Amino acid sequence: MKRRVFSGARPTGRQHLGNYLGAIQNYVALQDEYQCIYCIVDIHALTSLEDTSQLQENIHEMVLDWLAAGLDPKKSILFVQSHVPEVMELHTLLGMTTPLGWLLRVPTFKEKVKLQPHNVNYGLVGYPVLMTADIVLYKAEVVPVGEDQLPHLELAREIVRRFNNIFGDTFPEPQAKLTPFPMVLGLDGKEKMSKQLDNHIELALSPEETLERVMTAVTDPARRYRHDPGHPEVCNIYRLQQYFNEFKSGGIAEQCRRAQIGCVECKELLADAINTMLQPFRQRRAAIAAEPQYVTDVLADGARRARLIARRTLKEVKQRMGLI
Amino acid sequence: MKRRVFSGARPTGRQHLGNYLGAIQNYVALQDEYQCIYCIVDIHALTSLEDTSQLQENIHEMVLDWLAAGLDPKKSILFVQSHVPEVMELHTLLGMTTPLGWLLRVPTFKEKVKLQPHNVNYGLVGYPVLMTADIVLYKAEVVPVGEDQLPHLELAREIVRRFNNIFGDTFPEPQAKLTPFPMVLGLDGKEKMSKQLDNHIELALSPEETLERVMTAVTDPARRYRHDPGHPEVCNIYRLQQYFNEFKSGGIAEQCRRAQIGCVECKELLADAINTMLQPFRQRRAAIAAEPQYVTDVLADGARRARLIARRTLKEVKQRMGLI
Repeated sequence: MKRRVFSGARPTGRQHLGNYLGAIQNYVALQDEYQCIYCIVDIHALTSLEDTSQLQENIHEMVLDWLAAGLDPKKSILFVQSHVPEVMELHTLLGMTTPLGWLLRVPTFKEKVKLQPHNVNYGLVGYPVLMTADIVLYKAEVVPVGEDQLPHLELAREIVRRFNNIFGDTFPEPQAKLTPFPMVLGLDGKEKMSKQLDNHIELALSPEETLERVMTAVTDPARRYRHDPGHPEVCNIYRLQQYFNEFKSGGIAEQCRRAQIGCVECKELLADAINTMLQPFRQRRAAIAAEPQYVTDVLADGARRARLIARRTLKEVKQRMGLI
Repeated sequence: MKRRVFSGARPTGRQHLGNYLGAIQNYVALQDEYQCIYCIVDIHALTSLEDTSQLQENIHEMVLDWLAAGLDPKKSILFVQSHVPEVMELHTLLGMTTPLGWLLRVPTFKEKVKLQPHNVNYGLVGYPVLMTADIVLYKAEVVPVGEDQLPHLELAREIVRRFNNIFGDTFPEPQAKLTPFPMVLGLDGKEKMSKQLDNHIELALSPEETLERVMTAVTDPARRYRHDPGHPEVCNIYRLQQYFNEFKSGGIAEQCRRAQIGCVECKELLADAINTMLQPFRQRRAAIAAEPQYVTDVLADGARRARLIARRTLKEVKQRMGLI
């Protein structure tokens, strides 16, 4: 029997190249070896109380990208967190055995408190409890994480151990599957690619829009004129060439160093490469987007399958805690 | 249409005279004027992580007392908190708009931190959020409270106001119905009557057991011998005489002051009065206890009716928050 993987992602709407290289590619790859449960965590999105009016559209657009990229609802369970309300029950129940001190010490919590001191809600401090509930509701054994997420998973394991100690072995301790998430820089060449910073390239853009976005990218700042030699090692576009233009990127770097190719031309080559690579993705996406009912059905079926597991776990939890 | 009352009580098992005079009598009285929802809050019982192995028995015994005392499942909704899991969903969602600072400042939370510094869990600090969810899940307008509970209800109103401000008018602000809860002292004559302190007299005792318990009560410590005159105003037994032997208590006090009646005789009169008053209650209780299925059915029907309201509220909440 395949081991069970759980991963959750916030509903950020249309996905960009950073999401694709950092997470989606990996999600797709795990599907054959594991029984994968991929969750769009809409309740987590509420912890920072962003405007929620776009939530449904963001979920829909994100699922379109997931499906087009190869997440397969026949292999994996794809669903929206709040469609399985049992996770909120488990969040409440796990909270009864989770020391408040553990949560107040979480570095990302402390950071958020600094960033939004006037918006520190009970739900925000409970983020690791809800995250643990997400994972153990399905008794997932494996959680793919980047190195920066390791402390969160360690906390989830502690929350599980404490519950198991008090009420008896109920949940497996989830194991981290350390995954290299390449950190893709945005068009500014400084920050991680992100929708919020508007330094991103959406997967679902048209070829023309892609070229337009690539053209705005910052390149080697030392190369002011066409005849100046460039420094690919500090150039963000070169980094993207390495992902999307793998075989040509070495040659392009050479030409750049010798000032045999200009930045405009280099960007055109990159946009071409991106567009070529994403063409099948974009075709599939358009086909799926033409049938919105299909997305609804996929999510409904995912929630149904997830709930079957969730209800079994929750029944066991309630028995252990003496509630039934 | 009748206004809706909500009240919750922890599953403490067999109820005692203090519970009866302090809460149950009042619950019974409210049933005609209001649509009452009375909830046995088993999830709250987990916040202090007492041993949960007695939970189901405690619930059963408590419902027996409630029903025998006159709580009428035809008039009121009687149910167990965790049987309506929507309350845990609402707890999670309300937590997203409730500032952590409000919760950390609650005096009863601070007290509990002092009492059990090694057992301060996330669920404990969230107690007021769960309490608010209890009330507003049913859009209850009226909550009977003693004066000591007023700050909790004020906090619930603040939590409601904040949610309404952010997501639009969803919940009515629950109003306190200030209720005189007579503080019944225990057999020690010092502390409030409570099961935990073992200074209580259970309603369901036999007449003999009642007499036995009453006999252990501390009386006026200055009255050391039968011929010493007593001081009813400092005597705990006299206070109970006032409740249970209303018409004779004046005469008994006079006799006590003149040393015409001894403590043993006085206690016998009290036990008689308690037993006379509780006789119909005890008969009803025995009849109901003989049919355990009846209690199960009452609670199942209560949960079913409560869920109808809860689901409607929760759907509205999710729409407001953009989750559906």
